[in-house]
Formats: sequence, C-alpha cells, structure tokens
Amino acid sequence: MATPIFKASSSSFTVSKNYNLFQFLHTTIPSTPPPPKVFGTISFSFRRRYYSLVACTPSSSSSSSSSSSDSNSDSRPPVVVGPRLSLSSGAHVIPHPKKVEKGGEDAFFVSGFNGGVIAVADGVSGWAEQNVNPALFSQEFMAKASSFVEDEEVNYDPRTLIKKAHAATSSVGSATVIIAMLEKNGILKIANVGDCGLRIIRKGQVVFSTSPQEHYFDCPYQLSSEAVGQTYLDATVSSVELVKGDTLVIGSDGLFDNVFDYEIVSTVGTYDDVSNTAKVLAKLAHAHSVDLRYESPYSLEARARGFDVPWWKKVLGMKLTGGKLDDITVVVGHVESS
Amino acid sequence: MATPIFKASSSSFTVSKNYNLFQFLHTTIPSTPPPPKVFGTISFSFRRRYYSLVACTPSSSSSSSSSSSDSNSDSRPPVVVGPRLSLSSGAHVIPHPKKVEKGGEDAFFVSGFNGGVIAVADGVSGWAEQNVNPALFSQEFMAKASSFVEDEEVNYDPRTLIKKAHAATSSVGSATVIIAMLEKNGILKIANVGDCGLRIIRKGQVVFSTSPQEHYFDCPYQLSSEAVGQTYLDATVSSVELVKGDTLVIGSDGLFDNVFDYEIVSTVGTYDDVSNTAKVLAKLAHAHSVDLRYESPYSLEARARGFDVPWWKKVLGMKLTGGKLDDITVVVGHVESS
Repeated sequence: MATPIFKASSSSFTVSKNYNLFQFLHTTIPSTPPPPKVFGTISFSFRRRYYSLVACTPSSSSSSSSSSSDSNSDSRPPVVVGPRLSLSSGAHVIPHPKKVEKGGEDAFFVSGFNGGVIAVADGVSGWAEQNVNPALFSQEFMAKASSFVEDEEVNYDPRTLIKKAHAATSSVGSATVIIAMLEKNGILKIANVGDCGLRIIRKGQVVFSTSPQEHYFDCPYQLSSEAVGQTYLDATVSSVELVKGDTLVIGSDGLFDNVFDYEIVSTVGTYDDVSNTAKVLAKLAHAHSVDLRYESPYSLEARARGFDVPWWKKVLGMKLTGGKLDDITVVVGHVESS
Repeated sequence: MATPIFKASSSSFTVSKNYNLFQFLHTTIPSTPPPPKVFGTISFSFRRRYYSLVACTPSSSSSSSSSSSDSNSDSRPPVVVGPRLSLSSGAHVIPHPKKVEKGGEDAFFVSGFNGGVIAVADGVSGWAEQNVNPALFSQEFMAKASSFVEDEEVNYDPRTLIKKAHAATSSVGSATVIIAMLEKNGILKIANVGDCGLRIIRKGQVVFSTSPQEHYFDCPYQLSSEAVGQTYLDATVSSVELVKGDTLVIGSDGLFDNVFDYEIVSTVGTYDDVSNTAKVLAKLAHAHSVDLRYESPYSLEARARGFDVPWWKKVLGMKLTGGKLDDITVVVGHVESS
C-alpha cells in the first residue's frame, strides 16, 4: 500500500513539532533561530594548537567561558535536564531521474509524537530485476511504522518500532531503514539498518554520525520480505543527548553518497528554515549525482574499495568519478524548547 | 602527579576484565574467539544490489537467516538482555619520537569496574610554548578519573566522571579526553571532549564512530586549567548497545590521524589477542606518522581544509602528504560474556 505522502515527487514538506504525520502537508514552519556559523580556518601549522581566547571566535570563547565558569560547580544540572525539547522538521524528496513518475523508491514519515520522530526507508532497487516494484516495501514499512509510533509496546524504542513494522509488512521487497525518536528530556534514540544516515550538527560541526552497515560495497544491510534479510536484531542502536539548537540531518544514501559532511554543515549554517535547508541539501545532492566529473563521496569510496575505470582509461589519466544517481530524501530537524 | 602507567614508553599492557587499573600491568590476556572476518568485495556495478543468498557470505547469510526466522516473534528478548557483558582489553603506547624520554603526553587508564571502563587523554602540546609540560594535565586527569570510577555520584556516567576529574585537577594545561563505560547489560556510555576517538567493529565493519570536536583545524575542544577551555557540558554524550564479539578501538588522535578505519577493521579481523591488536595498530600508526609520502587521514583532511604545499611545489606536481608525528595511544577492548 502507499499513501500520497510516500509518493512525493520532488516535493517539499514542513512539519511543526505540534503536528502529526497526517496533518503535516498542511502545516507551516515556525520561525527558528539561526544556527551557529561554521568556524573559519587559520594559517596552517603542523604544531597542535592549544585553545586560547585569541585563537577562537567570540561565539565559542563566550560559550566556553560561560560554561567553564561552571566547571567546578555541582549545582548546575546536566544539559539534558534542561528545558523539554522537541523537533521542528522539514523534508525534501527528489526521485531518481528515471523514477520521477512513480515518485522514486524512498519513503519517510515525520511525527510530532513525544519529542518528535523521523524515519526514512530506501527501497532496494535490485528488486526490479525480479519484476517487483521496489517502492512498495519501503512505502508499506514507513506506513506501518507511522501507525505504530504511539504503540505502548513500542514504548519510544525505535528498534521495537522496526520490529513491529517489519512483522506487519506484506509487500515483497527490502529496504534500508533508519528511525530516530526524540524524548522530551533530549535523548535521541536511533535504530539503523543499512545505509540511510543521520548527522547531528552542533556549533558548526558534526558531533554525531551514524555508520552504514553493508555486506559488501553497494549491498547494504536491509530489512526484507525474504528470510535471508536482516531484522531488528541487526539494527545498530545508539542514543545521543541533544541540546537546544542542534540540527538533525537524516536521509537516504542518495544524500550521503553525493554530499560531504562539510557541505551539510555549511548548508545548515546558512539557512534558518528547516524546510529550506532540506530543499537546498536535496538539490545539492541531485546536482552532484548528475555530475559525471564530480568526485563524490560515492566515487571516492568506490576507488578506495579498488573499483576504477579500465586500465586503458587510467593510462589516459582518467579515473572513476561522478555522483550516484539515486532517490534523494532529506529530512532536517531543529531542536527547540517545547 | 603521574604514576608509572601514565608514563609508559612504547609499552604494551593487557587487561583482563577481572583486573583493575593497579593490577593490570601484571595480568595476562584471556583467550578470546577470533573476530569475524571482513567481507570481500565483488565485481563493481553502479546498480544498487539487493541481498541474496548467492551474493552473501555463508557467515552473514546464516546469521541473517537465524535472526530473520525470528523477525515475527515477540518471544525473543532483544540482544542487550542477553548474557552479561564485559570488556577484555589491551593497550599500546608509542610516544612522539621527540618525547620518548618523557613517555609522551598521552595518558590512559583501563578499569574492570562494572562491565569495564576505558579512558584516554591527550595533553595539548601547545602548552610547551608556555614552558608548561603538556603531559602533567593529561596524566593527572586520568589519575583523578580512575580514582573516581566507582564513586557513587558518578553512577556509571562518563560525563559526570569527566566533571569530577576536571574539578579535581590542579595541574596547568589542557587535554582532550574520551571515557567509555560499559554496563553489564551491554550499554556502552561514551563522553568525548575533543579529538580522541572510538570505533566499534562488529561483523567486519565499523558500526559506530565518534566525531571529533574542534574549534578549527588542529585546535580541538579541550578540558583546560584555564577558564577559556571546555567543560563536561561540552562533551558529546552518546551510548551504544554492544553485543558479544564486538571490538572497541579507542585512541588518541595519533591513531586516527594516521590510520584509516578500513585498516582498523582489517587489523581487528586479523588478530585475536586484544593486546596484539593494539600493538599492531599503534605500530601501523607510527609507521604512517613518519612516512613523509603517506597520504594519511591527517594530510587528506588538511588538503580538504585548503592547506597544501606552496604554489611553486604544486607546479612541480607536489602536494601536501605525510602522516602526523604525535603520541599514539591505542586501547582495544573485546566484548565477552562475564
């Protein structure tokens, strides 16, 4: 099965933390404070530097001094016991150029439940070789997962949500899946199977990143309708303490195979609106994906794994380059006081 | 202050999960099962593959089928509720070639408390410019942290351990610090300030990786004797569910600036003994650090940040290469049933 939301064709959504999945097509983004800017670099030296007021930016030194003044105090509560937090999210989807009509094979949902839930699934395209529409499994998986978000048995645990959604699917196919659930105390719980990804950007840098799971290059762990696939037991489960102002970037491998982390950090630091940020990142990923000369994360990884152009092309100075044509799904969440 | 353990000069230690910090110089490594091997790659294709019995290794397909057969069952407990887990650890230290006499400026400790504790601190060398011995702060920080490991107030929380150890230090200087504490239920809690790092290797791949924090290139977040430094509030705090057979690799940036993740995975898959693994990784990092032509993670990052050789060298086809001369500390922990 599939609902319109899972068949979005190059469309953008905005989700207020107060809206759930079935309302969010009609919501508008609440204004958010501008994220911190990226630190600049300075003249290069091979000597490791120590941190001095002179060497650092006003924003960092002020935040540092304000916190360091507290370093010997037992009275101040840890960050996570601060104001209750929730996500304001925006998303953008750009299907594979050859799959625009069907809307591609990625699926996602966003929910305002508890502190907020973001999930992305990427249908494995190889199923097309078996005359199976790869979009159906990922779409059904996300639909089932969204229906179980508030389930008592799930109890805010993304791995249990993967378990229940997987058990409820009836479509043939397989998908990589990532689900992130934020509790209002600031704890983000993440369950990840395959090569969808998540980045947490804080003060202009990535402070947390998921690692893709794969059997071999371009063959990710995947939840499948077949017995050979992975299950919730294969998910990498982690949690991170978020603070107000953090930005989450969650997406399918179509984003992370075409866009470097420094580009994600730079984009997050440039746009205040989560919907704009998602749109800009998706368009950047798409632009790279169709650029045959671009040295994408995907092409660099391929060369690092020993894949390259034929020897006679190497002789001519050529090498394996280019982005990766793929469905691109980007969901950006901004952590705010609820 | 400093104890002999913190001034180890190119020395190797082995820690049984049953020994604490002050015994571990005299312990021997318990035999551990060989970690799973790395998956091989196959002929390259730009089409994303779906997972089939044919395409995957016997080990992966069998483990997958055994778990997937359970995917629709509610009776099987999640992995973390399995056997009580603890760490068997080994460590190896190779100081900066110019700092061998003093043992370098890294410090670490390993404790068998609860499921096991591993901590690494890297004294920031820039303090030498101020006629301060950069080793003293990192050594005292680790000594204080090790003394607070079982403190009730710490309550297995690595960030609180950083807070108490920082407040207790009296030396002048600063250090990057990472502390990982394993609870017997399999939850590994990590608090990280700066660019020490941690990798979790499972089934031949990195499934979790910390992200370095820095103000700008080569200027990491650091816990300092000065007000301008960071505090426990700046730590990135995360937790991961470990399973039996996982391998932790924790080290100073001297490891991660000179050794790529794929080399860590390959080494972990080659050696059964955690002490040998740590020794091989440290020696590999050292070999790369003194190789002026090696394209290290450090030199690649420097070039990505815009640092390179002068223009007239570029004209001659030269580029910025080489490893990073640094203190190298590697601690390897293997997750076992306790």
